[in-house]
Amino acid sequence: MSKEAGGFSPRCNKMSYKNIETLTWSGDRGGGLCLIDQTLLPLELREIDCPDVETVWEAIKTLRVRGAPAIGIAAAYGICVGLQSLPSDANHEMFKRRLDEVVDYLASSRPTAVNLFWALNRLKQTAHSLLETKSVPEIAEAVFNEAKKIHEEDRAICRNIGKYGQELFNDGDTLLTHCNAGGLATADYGTALAVFFAATEAGKKITVYADETRPLLQGARLTAWELKERGIDTVLICDSMAAMVMKQGKINGVVVGADRIAANGDTANKIGTYGVAVLAKHHNVPFYVAAPVSTFDLTLKDGSGIPIEERKPEEITNGFGKRTAPEEVKVYNPAFDVTPAELLTGIITEFGIITPVNRSNIEKMLSFT
Amino acid sequence: MSKEAGGFSPRCNKMSYKNIETLTWSGDRGGGLCLIDQTLLPLELREIDCPDVETVWEAIKTLRVRGAPAIGIAAAYGICVGLQSLPSDANHEMFKRRLDEVVDYLASSRPTAVNLFWALNRLKQTAHSLLETKSVPEIAEAVFNEAKKIHEEDRAICRNIGKYGQELFNDGDTLLTHCNAGGLATADYGTALAVFFAATEAGKKITVYADETRPLLQGARLTAWELKERGIDTVLICDSMAAMVMKQGKINGVVVGADRIAANGDTANKIGTYGVAVLAKHHNVPFYVAAPVSTFDLTLKDGSGIPIEERKPEEITNGFGKRTAPEEVKVYNPAFDVTPAELLTGIITEFGIITPVNRSNIEKMLSFT
Repeated sequence: MSKEAGGFSPRCNKMSYKNIETLTWSGDRGGGLCLIDQTLLPLELREIDCPDVETVWEAIKTLRVRGAPAIGIAAAYGICVGLQSLPSDANHEMFKRRLDEVVDYLASSRPTAVNLFWALNRLKQTAHSLLETKSVPEIAEAVFNEAKKIHEEDRAICRNIGKYGQELFNDGDTLLTHCNAGGLATADYGTALAVFFAATEAGKKITVYADETRPLLQGARLTAWELKERGIDTVLICDSMAAMVMKQGKINGVVVGADRIAANGDTANKIGTYGVAVLAKHHNVPFYVAAPVSTFDLTLKDGSGIPIEERKPEEITNGFGKRTAPEEVKVYNPAFDVTPAELLTGIITEFGIITPVNRSNIEKMLSFT
Repeated sequence: MSKEAGGFSPRCNKMSYKNIETLTWSGDRGGGLCLIDQTLLPLELREIDCPDVETVWEAIKTLRVRGAPAIGIAAAYGICVGLQSLPSDANHEMFKRRLDEVVDYLASSRPTAVNLFWALNRLKQTAHSLLETKSVPEIAEAVFNEAKKIHEEDRAICRNIGKYGQELFNDGDTLLTHCNAGGLATADYGTALAVFFAATEAGKKITVYADETRPLLQGARLTAWELKERGIDTVLICDSMAAMVMKQGKINGVVVGADRIAANGDTANKIGTYGVAVLAKHHNVPFYVAAPVSTFDLTLKDGSGIPIEERKPEEITNGFGKRTAPEEVKVYNPAFDVTPAELLTGIITEFGIITPVNRSNIEKMLSFT
C-alpha cells in the first residue's frame, strides 16, 4: 500500500484488504482521518490522510470515499477535522460559527446523499444540545464521540444486515448485485455484500454476478475486488448482460444497496438499479435492497421527491483516460435512479426484513429505532 | 483521413462521413477492397487496404468491419481478393480448391455471423453453377459480379428499410437504439439507423438516445458519431440508463438491428438488446427490429438454436486501454443475446413490416424474395 503524502503513518500500515477499513480515525480528538482512495482501486490500494476539511470535502465530491454509510462517517469525522482548526481558547460563539461553516461546507460536497445530511445533522444536534451547559472543549469532545459512535454503530449494522439477509439464500445459490454496497462503502463489510459475506460465513457456497456498473465501474473495480479478496466465486459482467443471465435461469436473487428510501419504499440507488429490478420482476427473480434504517427519508412521501444528481458528461465520454465518443455529443448522466417499491421483494435492514414493502411495514420496522 | 499502409490511394481520398462508405471496391476484378477501420472511430477516420484475404479475415475477426450486412459484403469481396492469388492459367480444379480454401477460411473469422455464411454460400453457389460450362476467368468474373451485386442490393435494402420504418414514427418523436446498425454496418445508411435517417429526410424532427453499448461501445463510438454527422439530435447514455429514460416517458420507440432471426422471429442481436426489449415491454414502448430478409435463418425453428459467440474477457476488464477490474476475476462476455419474438412489436424489412411477429407472417414476407 502506498500513501498519498506526508511521512509514514502507523495507521496506514495495513497491507491487505482483510484487515483494512475504508475509513480510520487514529488517536483521540486531536488525531486524524485516513481513507482509502477508492478511485484508484483495484489497481492500487492507497490511503490518503485528511489534514483539513477541504480534503474530506474533495474526497466525498470526487468519490474517493463513496457509499451511503461511508459518506456519513466521513462527513462526521470531517466535522471533527474542521473543528481542529479552532484556536484552543475559542469561545462558544466562535465554536458555533465554525461548526455551522464546516457543516454547510460538507453538505455541499454531495448534495443528494441522505447519509451525509443525516450524519451532519446528528453531530450538529449533539453540539447544539450542549451549547448552554458545557465548555467548548467538552462539546468538541462530545461531537467527536458522536462521530466515533456513528462509525461503531455502522459496524454493528453491517453485521446485522448480513445476519438477516443471508437467511434468504441457500447453499449453491447464484446471486447478482449492482454497483458496490460492500466494505468499501461502510464501516465494516457492507450492506448488500454483507449478505454474501454472511452467507459464506454461514457455510453456504454462493456465486455472485457483479454488474460492472457504468459509468464509474464500481462493480468491476470495487465489488469484484472485495468479493475476490474474500474468496467468493465472482463473475464480472457488463450491465447489459444481467438480462441474459437471468433469462438463462442462472440467478436466484438480486441484492443491491440504497442511497435513499422514501416513506413508501421507493428506493434511489446507483443508476441501473431500476432496470435490474424490472428485469428481475420479468424473470421472477427476488429483488432485495439491503440498507440501514438511516437510509429512509420519511420526509419524502414517495420516490418522486428524491433529487437525482446529474454528473459530468466526461464520465461517459472519457471514462478511462481515453475519449470514446464524438466531440460535443449530448450526454445524459444521472447518478441514480428510483426503483418503485412494488418491484422490491423486501428491504433488508439491521432490524430485520421489511416485506412486503409498503408504508405500514416500513413504519413498523422503523419503530425499533 | 489517414490511410493504414502503402501509397496514396484515390479510393481512400474521402474527407467526411457524408460521402464515405464502410466498404469500397476499386476498379474491376483485379482491383481491391478498402474498408474503414471501425475500431479507431470516432477519434480517427482511417481506411485500410486489404491486399490479401488474411487482412479481410483479420478485419472481420477484430471488428474493424462489423455489422451483419457489412460483414457479408466484406466476406464476398474477401473471396474475390482470395481468388486474385490464383495463377492466370489456373485450371478448374485449382480454382475450386482455392475457392473452398478461401470460403472455409473466411467462415472461421466470425463463426456466428449468419450474413457471413449467407454471402460465402451465395458466391460459392454462383461458382459451382458455372464449373461445368464456363472458363476459370469467366467463373471468377461471375463471382466478382455476384459480390458487387450483394453490395448494390444492400444499398437498396437500406433505403427500403428506411422508407417503411420511418412511417412508424412522428415528427417530434424520441427514439432509442442499441449498438450500431448504421451506415458503418451496411453498404448504405444502415438498418435501424436508416429508419432515423429516412424520418429526418421526410422532414420529421426526431431525437435519438444512443445506448453506449458495452463492452465495445459501438453506440458511443459509431452510432453517436453517425447520427451527429448527419445532424440528428443525439443523446448518449450508458446502457444502464435506458430503463430510467423510458420510465421518464421520454422514449416513443426503440429500433435495433439484428444479427440473426430464427423462423419464429426470435432475434439475436448485440448483447443488451434483450434487456432493452424487456424494459420496452414493461414501459409499453414499441420495440422494432430493422433487418434485411437475409438475416432470417429459417433452418432455426426458434432462438434456442442460435449459437452465442463468447468474446475475450479483456473487452470487459481492459476495455479502455486501462485495467478496470481485479486480476484473474472470472468474466462472462457473450457478444449477443436472443430476444424472444413476443417482445417484438415488428420487424422492419426491405419488403415491409412484419407485425405481429410470428412464423406465418414471417413466411409471408419472405415469400417476396
